[in-house]
Amino acid sequence: MAFTPTDYLPYDFANRRHIGPSPAEMEQMLQVVGAKDLEALIDDTLPGAIRQEKPLDFGKPKSEQELLHHMRVTASKNKVLTSLIGQGYHGTVTPPAIQRNILENPAWYTAYTPYQPEISQGRLEALLNFQTMVSDLTGLEIANASLLDESTACAEAMTMAQRVAKTKVKGFFVDENCHPQNIAVIQTRAAPLGIEVIVGAPDDLDPSTVFGAIFQYPGTYGHLRDFTAEIAALHEHKAIGVIAADPLSLTLLKEPGAMGADIAVGSTQRFGVPVGYGGPHAAYMATKQAYARSMPGRIVGVSIDSHGNRAYRLSLQTREQHIRREKATSNVCTAQALLAVMAGFYAVFHGPEGLKAIAQRIHRKTDRMARGLEDAGFSIEPAAFFDTITVDVGPLQASVMKTAEKIGLNFRKVGETKVGITLDERTRSKTIKRVWAVFGIRDRDTDLTAEYRIPDDLLRSSQYLTHPVFHMNRAETEMMRYMRRLADRDLALDRAMIPLGSCTMKLNSAAEMMPVSWREFSLLHPYCPADQALGYKEMIDDLSSKLCDVTGYDAISMQPNSGAQGEYAGLLTIAAYHREQGQGHRNICLIPMSAHGTNPASAQMVGWKVVPVKTAANGDIDLEDFRAKAEQHAENLAACMITYPSTHGVFEETVTDVCDITHGHGGQVYIDGANMNAMVGLSRPGDLGGDVSHLNLHKTFCIPHGGGGPGMGPIGVKAHLTPHLPGDPNSGSGAVSAAAFGSPSLLPISWAYCLMMGGEGLTQATRVAILNANYIAKRLEGAFDVLYKGPSGRVAHECIIDTRPFNESAHVTVDDIAKRLIDCGFHAPTMSWPVAGTLMIEPTESETKAELDRFCDAMLAIRAEIAEIEEGKIDANNNPLKNAPHTMEDLVRDWDRPYSRETGCFPPGAFRVDKYWPPVNRVDNVWGDRNLTCTCPPMEDYAEAAE
Amino acid sequence: MAFTPTDYLPYDFANRRHIGPSPAEMEQMLQVVGAKDLEALIDDTLPGAIRQEKPLDFGKPKSEQELLHHMRVTASKNKVLTSLIGQGYHGTVTPPAIQRNILENPAWYTAYTPYQPEISQGRLEALLNFQTMVSDLTGLEIANASLLDESTACAEAMTMAQRVAKTKVKGFFVDENCHPQNIAVIQTRAAPLGIEVIVGAPDDLDPSTVFGAIFQYPGTYGHLRDFTAEIAALHEHKAIGVIAADPLSLTLLKEPGAMGADIAVGSTQRFGVPVGYGGPHAAYMATKQAYARSMPGRIVGVSIDSHGNRAYRLSLQTREQHIRREKATSNVCTAQALLAVMAGFYAVFHGPEGLKAIAQRIHRKTDRMARGLEDAGFSIEPAAFFDTITVDVGPLQASVMKTAEKIGLNFRKVGETKVGITLDERTRSKTIKRVWAVFGIRDRDTDLTAEYRIPDDLLRSSQYLTHPVFHMNRAETEMMRYMRRLADRDLALDRAMIPLGSCTMKLNSAAEMMPVSWREFSLLHPYCPADQALGYKEMIDDLSSKLCDVTGYDAISMQPNSGAQGEYAGLLTIAAYHREQGQGHRNICLIPMSAHGTNPASAQMVGWKVVPVKTAANGDIDLEDFRAKAEQHAENLAACMITYPSTHGVFEETVTDVCDITHGHGGQVYIDGANMNAMVGLSRPGDLGGDVSHLNLHKTFCIPHGGGGPGMGPIGVKAHLTPHLPGDPNSGSGAVSAAAFGSPSLLPISWAYCLMMGGEGLTQATRVAILNANYIAKRLEGAFDVLYKGPSGRVAHECIIDTRPFNESAHVTVDDIAKRLIDCGFHAPTMSWPVAGTLMIEPTESETKAELDRFCDAMLAIRAEIAEIEEGKIDANNNPLKNAPHTMEDLVRDWDRPYSRETGCFPPGAFRVDKYWPPVNRVDNVWGDRNLTCTCPPMEDYAEAAE
Repeated sequence: MAFTPTDYLPYDFANRRHIGPSPAEMEQMLQVVGAKDLEALIDDTLPGAIRQEKPLDFGKPKSEQELLHHMRVTASKNKVLTSLIGQGYHGTVTPPAIQRNILENPAWYTAYTPYQPEISQGRLEALLNFQTMVSDLTGLEIANASLLDESTACAEAMTMAQRVAKTKVKGFFVDENCHPQNIAVIQTRAAPLGIEVIVGAPDDLDPSTVFGAIFQYPGTYGHLRDFTAEIAALHEHKAIGVIAADPLSLTLLKEPGAMGADIAVGSTQRFGVPVGYGGPHAAYMATKQAYARSMPGRIVGVSIDSHGNRAYRLSLQTREQHIRREKATSNVCTAQALLAVMAGFYAVFHGPEGLKAIAQRIHRKTDRMARGLEDAGFSIEPAAFFDTITVDVGPLQASVMKTAEKIGLNFRKVGETKVGITLDERTRSKTIKRVWAVFGIRDRDTDLTAEYRIPDDLLRSSQYLTHPVFHMNRAETEMMRYMRRLADRDLALDRAMIPLGSCTMKLNSAAEMMPVSWREFSLLHPYCPADQALGYKEMIDDLSSKLCDVTGYDAISMQPNSGAQGEYAGLLTIAAYHREQGQGHRNICLIPMSAHGTNPASAQMVGWKVVPVKTAANGDIDLEDFRAKAEQHAENLAACMITYPSTHGVFEETVTDVCDITHGHGGQVYIDGANMNAMVGLSRPGDLGGDVSHLNLHKTFCIPHGGGGPGMGPIGVKAHLTPHLPGDPNSGSGAVSAAAFGSPSLLPISWAYCLMMGGEGLTQATRVAILNANYIAKRLEGAFDVLYKGPSGRVAHECIIDTRPFNESAHVTVDDIAKRLIDCGFHAPTMSWPVAGTLMIEPTESETKAELDRFCDAMLAIRAEIAEIEEGKIDANNNPLKNAPHTMEDLVRDWDRPYSRETGCFPPGAFRVDKYWPPVNRVDNVWGDRNLTCTCPPMEDYAEAAE
Repeated sequence: MAFTPTDYLPYDFANRRHIGPSPAEMEQMLQVVGAKDLEALIDDTLPGAIRQEKPLDFGKPKSEQELLHHMRVTASKNKVLTSLIGQGYHGTVTPPAIQRNILENPAWYTAYTPYQPEISQGRLEALLNFQTMVSDLTGLEIANASLLDESTACAEAMTMAQRVAKTKVKGFFVDENCHPQNIAVIQTRAAPLGIEVIVGAPDDLDPSTVFGAIFQYPGTYGHLRDFTAEIAALHEHKAIGVIAADPLSLTLLKEPGAMGADIAVGSTQRFGVPVGYGGPHAAYMATKQAYARSMPGRIVGVSIDSHGNRAYRLSLQTREQHIRREKATSNVCTAQALLAVMAGFYAVFHGPEGLKAIAQRIHRKTDRMARGLEDAGFSIEPAAFFDTITVDVGPLQASVMKTAEKIGLNFRKVGETKVGITLDERTRSKTIKRVWAVFGIRDRDTDLTAEYRIPDDLLRSSQYLTHPVFHMNRAETEMMRYMRRLADRDLALDRAMIPLGSCTMKLNSAAEMMPVSWREFSLLHPYCPADQALGYKEMIDDLSSKLCDVTGYDAISMQPNSGAQGEYAGLLTIAAYHREQGQGHRNICLIPMSAHGTNPASAQMVGWKVVPVKTAANGDIDLEDFRAKAEQHAENLAACMITYPSTHGVFEETVTDVCDITHGHGGQVYIDGANMNAMVGLSRPGDLGGDVSHLNLHKTFCIPHGGGGPGMGPIGVKAHLTPHLPGDPNSGSGAVSAAAFGSPSLLPISWAYCLMMGGEGLTQATRVAILNANYIAKRLEGAFDVLYKGPSGRVAHECIIDTRPFNESAHVTVDDIAKRLIDCGFHAPTMSWPVAGTLMIEPTESETKAELDRFCDAMLAIRAEIAEIEEGKIDANNNPLKNAPHTMEDLVRDWDRPYSRETGCFPPGAFRVDKYWPPVNRVDNVWGDRNLTCTCPPMEDYAEAAE
């Protein structure tokens, strides 16, 4: 019998796994939307002029199985040697329970930034543990919830020092013993801001010439030094002392706080986060309480909920999302939440005794290794060290490095005559024998009695990690349950749609995530020889080429490790280009009023002046105003920064005009890639006239949000800008991140996504993202005003609904609606951005019709509740909206509400059996900011709260 | 400064990760227990006479990191070729989302068998999906929730056929086309039962001579045949027709039900469960509704809860746990729940269209491969096939096999002149080209038009998987959330202690679990050449040697894939030994009344007569009765089966007497290893006088319970029994499982446990298990009667508390207490076993003091509630115990109870924020058995239930 195969393709990742609505569901949705077919809807939505000519073609898409095979082949091209290079990156042991239950658990990695504290208590507690750990180890009163990497943290410390120092001098001193990548990023950051960076030996510091200084501790070549005197001298001149410190060393060493440091920064990578060829890891920053409000980054704090119970939240949030443009001094919005959570749990797993024991092991081994070398007559430096030494091998440097590599070790090249060796948690006795073997030392016993090579007065005398959380029972059973309890308190993508406008919370598929854990990707040192990272190279090259195809650009830099970093890197690239063209004076940046807050912040970071452009009533850029401003500043026009489709979710027809005007006046066009999920395969920023764009790989390209980081923000540029991309020493734009490729161990995720989707799959995802948004807009129409539609009445991949009228009519705020959505089992859409009093809803292509309907049902029910208030049927101050979210505790308590428990707790949308319960009632933001507590509160406080 | 290291050992897996109580907690607990130190407690508990002489010594224990390194080295000794061997084991693609969210998720793998349905609704639903899938694919009305493997399922089908057939003849016909391992296990099972197995071609079947017949479909060499006529002939003679069918082939082929089959069995391995060198996988059994009550294994059914809402449960449970000894015909208690869940989800992921497409792909590829060979002049068989062919290569067989192996393919050796080739879901076009290359065929295009090689009348015409669950949206987002919702409905070890007496629910650590997913362990075919499995061999040899050290035996057989299988295999070994000694007539087995129900069942399976021995008032074996029975049956005494420490949780001093008496009368001693967790490192069954024991690796050696399987029950024997161990063709005891090593892909878990614990760690675990049990006994003392203590007032690793008095005093049953414990956030202890009306509590060493206290607090609070009933303070029929468990729905409903919501839902022990809510109220067992529904109920039923 002839074979008539079914037309069902079980391995079609794009249409069977990634894209939410099934073909049948799409039919139904198109009817609701009123479009003949998907192509017709797209034609309605995207102006023909901006459509790309050639469809994306990445060849035959791979099945999950083919992908994993391909990944294994690629991974095998990376060679995992034992890297003793140090320089801020260390071997570490990730406790398997943390790997399985955090890093590989969608409940943690698919979570969003905890802006909605009621559904984020689990990760907020985990981050508070992290902050407490940092605060304790550094001996400073307050810490943030992580920064992108140590180098950017150093740069942030510099600009923060400038903000808080009570001196006007423009110098910033940088210890020459800082890691080279830290110095490089500081220099990049300083230049446009007019800060004069003085690199030198601490002995040469002239405190009168600087507003601050940064010292590395231990130094990049292992030196230990007490900076108390230098910092005292700085303070005398009203300058700020910053120490970049390895937190593990601080379990043994005198802490920065004890030296009088004002700010401490560093990387918590070696707290259980694999090196990953450079990232991602969580950098930290800690400071004195007095400077709390000047510290960049997110800070988790303790507040209370509407019943007075303890609740965690992000403190001082207004510094971030609602950033005051004119005062922006940092564009750091992304943290490294997932990695900070891991590092925090690492500290909980080991406790102070464990961390100290680990540090001692490393120090003991380093001492033994050093003594073996000394006994054999080698000259080693420094005399006092923690985990790092250098050995002077004279002209044999190259030979020693090669020999080491041959037996599986990577040393660090130091100057022309030395090699650096740094030991870490993974170092075994065998490793020391292998090191010795490189130096011709054989048959020597590693079991020497060890001595501290740390001067007595540099040994730490204070306690740390005294909070009970670091002293809880550390049996895996208990730890596993603690991780599960925290995870269960949160609402992440593994339970519900997170329809955050502009954040593109889409599926992070299991197949995409798997290679991230593979040792061939996770164990590579960023400064290992290039021929050990050929798998990475192949991946980065291919992914870059695909991203060029997607965007219409000619080159990609993978260095920026967040979207905001991407913006900043893009503008640096433009600035370098202008300088090369002899147009270095150009310093005006046109930015529409509706832009992301990071846009003006980035512009100011490159030393430009922001000129705002008006937004027309329909949400579009006011073209006349744009033209006028461009003409007015023609001489000095550096760039414009626009978002496409606009932050209002509309494909503006005038985008090419904007680009032409800018180019006509000598400016460059930066197109923010935040909304690329509405464009991939349909339209290319490079074709529209963009010169640079960043891509949020953690949005459009499936890197999970991790509860607020990691992210990746590579930039694409046109050919004329390629020579100026950051990372290359000759580019003129310097380094923006510590590692050459930002957070490369995440790249398998985006690469896997491209490989499994194929060009057509990616394009279909875009189409369905637009369909899903239009479906929601249509279903909510009538009940809510949908703002900012395109000329044909369509929205792009997100829609904005107006809730301002309800404030008038029913005293209902956008916050009330957001909190009520929690009762329905949803994370709220983006609130009050880009327009105050609105909700911006982005469903993405991964959500199914059923989930969209559940959401729409919930929204319509909320609208009905508002109507009841409007009609006076229910109390304007005591109703399900004002009392939202409702907790299990509410159910247990006496119920004195004018509506039923059922109405309060099970509104439409809420699952019945699988109901998500927020662990706290509405969190009081004002209280938290007024009573700033950003470390774990003492246990007696918990007892009180429980009463 | 001299180095004074902390004495904290952060990588000490035994004391920092596996064992629950910290040293400080143990101090406190010992005070409560009233013991000077741990050693003193053990001296009190274990009679000196039974203590082992030498401490266990496995060398230096490995850290998690060292373990994973060691595992990688071992794994690398397994060579992963593409196995086209077939014979019941097939390459399959595990959807990554299933791997991550089920197989690697503790919420699924640490769950217990769903005997407490209220906390098991998630896995019960998943298993119901599995049953529905099996029932649909086989075309039979009812299916069970899995069996151990296809071969044991065949044997079970044979004995079931004997039970239900209305004929007394003793013959059972076995199609010679059955897989050899199926025939072997059938023969093993048949012999002691006096069943005459007739192996032959279906054409030679004489239905008058048999009570049943089994046919393989497709045949082991690929043949397809319609067995309708044979089965009709069997029915005419009141005999039973069984078909062992590949479920994937049934998406294309006429189903067993349509041929009139009474029973269908088979393996669901190729539904996404890796081959794993032979196991574990879920076998299935389906039958006609009329035979439902004769079907072995667990059956999930639909019932209602106390509010009339739908609830799932295990149907007909009385057949299992409370097995009627004298009628036992099967000892199958373990299922393969975790693997059945995976297979069920695989069907949900793909749906009928997807499964059919997969089957078609395989068939199409097989056709193409065959045509290539035919065109090149090779003679292939059979003419009609699904996925398997044989090629006649004459004298070149060895050469062809070798050539295949050289290019990475394993073929099957068939006879002396043929090779068998079976394709599967992992087969790629490239694979076919490589097959051709072995036969010298090159440059041939695989892209031939395909034809069905299935005769028209064997093509399936009926529908399958019509239930909505197989037609839900299959986007990964939706699937992930479905898996999470089901997981959240259940209470597993990742949330709370599961203090099940005799079940040893201890930590299954992440490090132990990780290697299970590695391809070097998961992708090996059980019949691959031995030199491809050297890593497995090394592991099995080393683990066996360690288990010999632990038990005092001389050899281990890894073949039994459950504890009950181990018992059966052990008795077969004894029987073979007796036969060899000319004592084949010995057929009396002494078993204490308190024994596990599986003991007498196993004895009957080897054709022995069970003679029960009385239990003394203190729970010990009544030694005088034992002596009397042994003497009485001296001539025919085959063995005694005892459990040590006893099922009452006491180390009986008389154990050596029991052994001596048995040996004195020519019998052998079987010591049930169910309670080995109380012995490891302290006492060895082999030293006590045991000749055989089985070890539950899924209890004592950390293989997780998986919600009711997989398990592993290897047996240890003394040297004189070694030649008779099952698995060896010359042993005289035959094969008990399909694969040589049972479920070998689980063995990395137990091996890892031994390697990380070391001898002293394992011993300390035993001590702490005993401490934990004594701590609970002490804390509950006074409130509850603790039955069966040893002479010094100690219990072993578990304690039994008596709840019978409360039935009298307060009308409170053991069930009421168990359900009330759910409100407190606990899985109930073992109920009414070994003594009706009691609870047997086994905390294991992995639980911390805090968790033990939480449990004791809950129990004491329950006791106080009982007191209130006793005192008439609360209604005997409307109280928190009778209404337990309480659900979220109870909170929402009008509350007409004489106690508060708070009292009902938050008794002591219950977490406040992290409260576990059972999704249903108390499940009605009687209703479920009366209204047997064992497939997914139609959707309209769901709607009704929701109303």
